[in-house]
Amino acid sequence: MKDIILMTPGPTMVPEEVRKVTGMQPLHHRTPDFYALFSRLNNNLKQIFKTKNEVITLTSSGTGGMEAVVANIFSTGDKVLVASIGYFGERFYDIAKAYGLDAELLDFGWGNAVDLNVLEDKLGNGNYKALLVTHNETSTGVTNNVKEIAKIANRYGVVVIVDAVSSLGGIPLEMDEWGIDAVITCSQKCLMAPPGLAFVSLSERAWQMAKTSNLPKYYFNLKKAKEGVLKSNPDTPATPAVSTIMAVSKSTEMLLNTGLEEVYKRQVLYGSKVRNYIKDLGLELLPREEIASNLITAIKVPEKYKASDIINYMKENYKVLITGGQGLLKGKIIRIGHMGYLTDEMLDKTLTALKEAVDTLK
Amino acid sequence: MKDIILMTPGPTMVPEEVRKVTGMQPLHHRTPDFYALFSRLNNNLKQIFKTKNEVITLTSSGTGGMEAVVANIFSTGDKVLVASIGYFGERFYDIAKAYGLDAELLDFGWGNAVDLNVLEDKLGNGNYKALLVTHNETSTGVTNNVKEIAKIANRYGVVVIVDAVSSLGGIPLEMDEWGIDAVITCSQKCLMAPPGLAFVSLSERAWQMAKTSNLPKYYFNLKKAKEGVLKSNPDTPATPAVSTIMAVSKSTEMLLNTGLEEVYKRQVLYGSKVRNYIKDLGLELLPREEIASNLITAIKVPEKYKASDIINYMKENYKVLITGGQGLLKGKIIRIGHMGYLTDEMLDKTLTALKEAVDTLK
Repeated sequence: MKDIILMTPGPTMVPEEVRKVTGMQPLHHRTPDFYALFSRLNNNLKQIFKTKNEVITLTSSGTGGMEAVVANIFSTGDKVLVASIGYFGERFYDIAKAYGLDAELLDFGWGNAVDLNVLEDKLGNGNYKALLVTHNETSTGVTNNVKEIAKIANRYGVVVIVDAVSSLGGIPLEMDEWGIDAVITCSQKCLMAPPGLAFVSLSERAWQMAKTSNLPKYYFNLKKAKEGVLKSNPDTPATPAVSTIMAVSKSTEMLLNTGLEEVYKRQVLYGSKVRNYIKDLGLELLPREEIASNLITAIKVPEKYKASDIINYMKENYKVLITGGQGLLKGKIIRIGHMGYLTDEMLDKTLTALKEAVDTLK
Repeated sequence: MKDIILMTPGPTMVPEEVRKVTGMQPLHHRTPDFYALFSRLNNNLKQIFKTKNEVITLTSSGTGGMEAVVANIFSTGDKVLVASIGYFGERFYDIAKAYGLDAELLDFGWGNAVDLNVLEDKLGNGNYKALLVTHNETSTGVTNNVKEIAKIANRYGVVVIVDAVSSLGGIPLEMDEWGIDAVITCSQKCLMAPPGLAFVSLSERAWQMAKTSNLPKYYFNLKKAKEGVLKSNPDTPATPAVSTIMAVSKSTEMLLNTGLEEVYKRQVLYGSKVRNYIKDLGLELLPREEIASNLITAIKVPEKYKASDIINYMKENYKVLITGGQGLLKGKIIRIGHMGYLTDEMLDKTLTALKEAVDTLK
């Protein structure tokens, strides 16, 4: 289906300039042209991560990046707390369990944010090595207050690992300033490129932990990848997804040209515009307004509708693709992604399509 | 550097039709359009792997596919033999060691092929669960006789795992017919697409082993990936590299339209053409002619030359990129890749460039 507008939590729309670069002949990854491109990308990423640490590029989805962090900094039996508010929090827990960590799931419920008091109580009384937390939970349209979460964790000397897969480059996240030890993101959400790459950055403290980590890794060996990044001619241990690196190099350049502060501002406007429209339609948001994400909006589907009918109506009549719920929320919510490359026209068309779907299907 | 011709062991040249598809807006991976595309790709891959088993698509480089096979079918301490003939054989050994297997390296030397008698002796007298072997060793330009290797392994009930990263779709490999238990390949070599995807297929016997495997995996969980492939609307556990899936779907269709037998025939012609030209120039192949690869040719650099001078001359004067040696062979050989998308013009230009480099630099 051509010309469809993706208003999803990724893949998102890829600007034409970025698609053009993606469709070029891939560079060979051991050539000066690639080294120059990769240097620029690494530089762009450090600015977006707001870190002095190196950012590692992995050829994988965001999930691979989450696994890479777990496999590289922990050892068997390490006690970690996973503060979950939905599907991707649970995924982080599953990864930790798969690697034999002593992981505990602290479930705040789908549609809620991390309760800072509950978290503080837990971290103060446990003996956790690390806290794993999702910044922006796309399954529920909730954004956690990662700045405060990191502050609490640091108060108790607990390492902070943030899944910023759907948030980085869209809403504020300051890795160094906020004291975060690992940040993970990917190419196809706020970074406006096709899927296929994960990006990971570790703090000095996390790199120290990596030295004694006993978990198996080869493809996701971050120490080896970091050596590649630090070369005067930076490269990757194995052949990377060169076309996607070319794409993200372009898209991050565009993002930085716009300016992160400007992007953050726009996302606040998009978020409140969508929420106000939803309320005017008489629909209800899944989360409370104060914790609602400015990147994706989750809307309760009233009893009289079927979620799939609304989604199909919008797709067939307006060529706008939104998504339904995942896991527990399947059939119960619809979700409008408004992250990454987005124009007012795209957003207005989406809201009009939703209104018509709701009016027609009732 | 634009318009450069990649005569490398990957990334290789991507045909314009494939690049066009790569540069399109990525489909969302939970839509009927994607399911249809992914079904076609899976079907194409089964034909290319020559297997009735499912082929799993992983968003990673070929190395990730190798690791996925190791992590999914083995358990800690499993005794395996790695028959190595170069850089990528050693990589397979490193992966096995990283995952705590009782791995033994049987090194046949860089530039040699697996000696079938030595192998038979070893497999007959060891108690190996599996044999890990490279089909086409790009670091040395040698192709192993995998058909005979698999026959020997099967005689002793040893599971056969073949790294076909640089061979599948270019030279004959019959997974089912030859009794191979795991085959790994990737998107950017004989399959004529950009890098970013690995493809893996397991035999029934390998899937049985996967049931008891105790090694950690999450992102590379092949059982979960297989469930996705077997759905009536096939998908992947995490967001895949959709643009690259779109590309490989197109490129494998082109490959099958040409016909595998026709491609194999062409590769034999390309291989002998390059080797004859090399000999006419008075240069020496690294391997013996009988084991020389039809996908990549490794040439010894005579004392009076510097490998990098030849490579740079060809790049600067002809915009043709060949590569040097890896590991042990750094500076000692040059390598001409002639796999994947290749025209007579590209090959002739490469050979002319090499001749001129050799004449000029002597």
